[in-house]
Amino acid sequence: MDLLDGAEGGDVENLVTVLDLVRAGAARTRPELARRSGLGRAVISQQLERLQVAGLIGEGALAPSTGGRAPRSIEFRADAGVLLVAELGATSLSAGVTDLTGRLLAHHEERFDIAKGPEAELGRLAQLFDSLLQASGPQRAPWGVGVGVPGPVEFSTGRSVSPPIMPGWHAYPLRDLLAARFSAPVFIDNDVNLMALGELRSGLARGEDHVVYLKIGTGIGAGIICGGRLYRGAQGCAGDVGHVAVEAESDIVCRCGNHGCLEALAGGAALARDGTVAAQSGESAYLAAVLNRGDDVTGEDISKAAQHGDPVALALLVRTGRLVGEVLATIVNFYNPRLVLIGGGVATAGDVLLAAVRESVYRRSLPLATRHLQIALSPLGDEAGLRGAAAMITDELFSAERLARWLPVGSPAGMPELAEAT
Amino acid sequence: MDLLDGAEGGDVENLVTVLDLVRAGAARTRPELARRSGLGRAVISQQLERLQVAGLIGEGALAPSTGGRAPRSIEFRADAGVLLVAELGATSLSAGVTDLTGRLLAHHEERFDIAKGPEAELGRLAQLFDSLLQASGPQRAPWGVGVGVPGPVEFSTGRSVSPPIMPGWHAYPLRDLLAARFSAPVFIDNDVNLMALGELRSGLARGEDHVVYLKIGTGIGAGIICGGRLYRGAQGCAGDVGHVAVEAESDIVCRCGNHGCLEALAGGAALARDGTVAAQSGESAYLAAVLNRGDDVTGEDISKAAQHGDPVALALLVRTGRLVGEVLATIVNFYNPRLVLIGGGVATAGDVLLAAVRESVYRRSLPLATRHLQIALSPLGDEAGLRGAAAMITDELFSAERLARWLPVGSPAGMPELAEAT
Repeated sequence: MDLLDGAEGGDVENLVTVLDLVRAGAARTRPELARRSGLGRAVISQQLERLQVAGLIGEGALAPSTGGRAPRSIEFRADAGVLLVAELGATSLSAGVTDLTGRLLAHHEERFDIAKGPEAELGRLAQLFDSLLQASGPQRAPWGVGVGVPGPVEFSTGRSVSPPIMPGWHAYPLRDLLAARFSAPVFIDNDVNLMALGELRSGLARGEDHVVYLKIGTGIGAGIICGGRLYRGAQGCAGDVGHVAVEAESDIVCRCGNHGCLEALAGGAALARDGTVAAQSGESAYLAAVLNRGDDVTGEDISKAAQHGDPVALALLVRTGRLVGEVLATIVNFYNPRLVLIGGGVATAGDVLLAAVRESVYRRSLPLATRHLQIALSPLGDEAGLRGAAAMITDELFSAERLARWLPVGSPAGMPELAEAT
Repeated sequence: MDLLDGAEGGDVENLVTVLDLVRAGAARTRPELARRSGLGRAVISQQLERLQVAGLIGEGALAPSTGGRAPRSIEFRADAGVLLVAELGATSLSAGVTDLTGRLLAHHEERFDIAKGPEAELGRLAQLFDSLLQASGPQRAPWGVGVGVPGPVEFSTGRSVSPPIMPGWHAYPLRDLLAARFSAPVFIDNDVNLMALGELRSGLARGEDHVVYLKIGTGIGAGIICGGRLYRGAQGCAGDVGHVAVEAESDIVCRCGNHGCLEALAGGAALARDGTVAAQSGESAYLAAVLNRGDDVTGEDISKAAQHGDPVALALLVRTGRLVGEVLATIVNFYNPRLVLIGGGVATAGDVLLAAVRESVYRRSLPLATRHLQIALSPLGDEAGLRGAAAMITDELFSAERLARWLPVGSPAGMPELAEAT
């Protein structure tokens, strides 16, 4: 932290200020940078030179003149490096390569059962990363790796802690193994945190200060935006609402061992379980047809059945919406968000789910807390998590602490030193 | 906001930086200020001069030399002005005069039924403020007024919104009336927010980033610290957990009109109600004696009875602790705080309540969320709210926005201009 003290610290902060404005596209010329940052011309020129030597920015075309000589535009070199991003779902594995702004250059999703354990998943993930890197252009070392996992993560160590739906993952050193394999810094976070971050940077939550992103998939969890930033809590496990007791007297045992957890009664696995019963009894013709095709009934099948007007599926989704809404009502009273986004596999059910969630929330929250509250479906959908993973990596790579260690050395070719910092 | 842009904005921010360091006692000499702020000597001298002209700082004794000439110590003039602070409880009214650091110079507490309505309470509060001002020293205009009220407040307008336990207070212009009466800027917030702020500045929450302060009094509510700052939510009503449904099938109707609210089943009024029944039936000899004295049974009587080992009172407090703990478990899973503080009148019951709260929380929260979680009684007790009210006032008075308007004018005698800014 010594580098951040005193004059040199101010210097690094100026560097971060300039880089952030250029990265976000908020300032494209020197005069704009001066106006937006409040920094002097000399300081800005000095920082731009450092960024140019490092290969992070380039000078573009002439910008429109505002009176004097037309200033040359400054552009963030999004293609200076690539990032590897992945989302490990309970039933799917999604991986991609992005540029330094988080734009997906190549990505791939496949079904994967997380219960197969960490070694199998890590092996498949590494294969996917390799082939995606090849597909995305000339092979080069990634600048960073970001992975979302469906369970509590201690952000400082990057390890899963007692994840109820991830047998064998407790304290598994995913970060260290990926860092060794790809020689790059690796950041791990809860998948829902990354979805919230994705929506914050490039979705409906952009510019919002108080947001709750609620994922309803196989598991249920929340990502929290506080003061325009991702809020992780004291141990990095904020938002873990899937195991809130909603029906303590229920005899359905959750994977966590408790009774009556929200996730066990309202998540994708609960929908699949109760949908299967309705298919077997013939109560739902639509779901019986799924079984007759030889397939398992999944949460997604329930969403599709509801879209076809199947009354059993509609009733199941209304129940999920009501239970989720009851927990959300507590969260709304406690946290008073401006925006609640609903995402995850079950959210593809759309309006029928949303209406049930809204009804519960409005019935049990205080008037002031819901006066300007917006409850909406996540617009980024599947992409929210991968975009959020890229944002997590660049937030870390371009932080004052890392830039202070990196840029004094100068390394136009890449960021190899950063790998040591994992 | 123009003043905050460009060079002049940086100037005001430097002023705030210097003043904050001096106010907090974090830097007492010019060299310390330079080291802690990263600002240059010339900038610091310029800002100190402005603060000295404004009467906010004075030069004290010689500080210990660290080599060269002994630097003169710089002291925040806590006595440059006084603040009026108050806490309106459901059953009590508490008011005080503090110096600019929030130290109580005089204070007074009395029983007051908030159901008497806002005019009666405002009248009594103004009387108290007048006599406390007289008692605290040479009469002078207060620099600011801070009031905590037991219900949701829209912080930007300073008005109560649909407060369930405050009949007649909806949209009552308390702020404007107090501002006119005392010719000073007035700030209103929820009482629990101010208790949390008090603990953050001078209690157990000092230096903590993730804190929930839970008040169990007549009403139940939470104050939230996020990233080391008070979190108010989108509409300023974050923490309003008293009306979370804990027993939806309960036939006890809450003052808010809903069934099964936490507050209606576990708050001070619920304890008093069930304690009265036990007193009348003779089931509790201790509480029957209260009735026989001609007094009403209050929540405080239940706490006292429990301390005397009364089994009915102990059972009632265990029930309160269990219900509060169930809601707190959801909050802990969602928010993952490092510290939960329990305050308010019922908290005087102490360990029996705390044990019941802890048991519920640990049973229903995820292991990671409780691994380093501390649940403790509020050490500041009664004073937390008044200290927090003073901190709220000075945070606003010494903000960049207000200093930018005030200090360019220069006003060594006081801050009359600030009154216009309410």
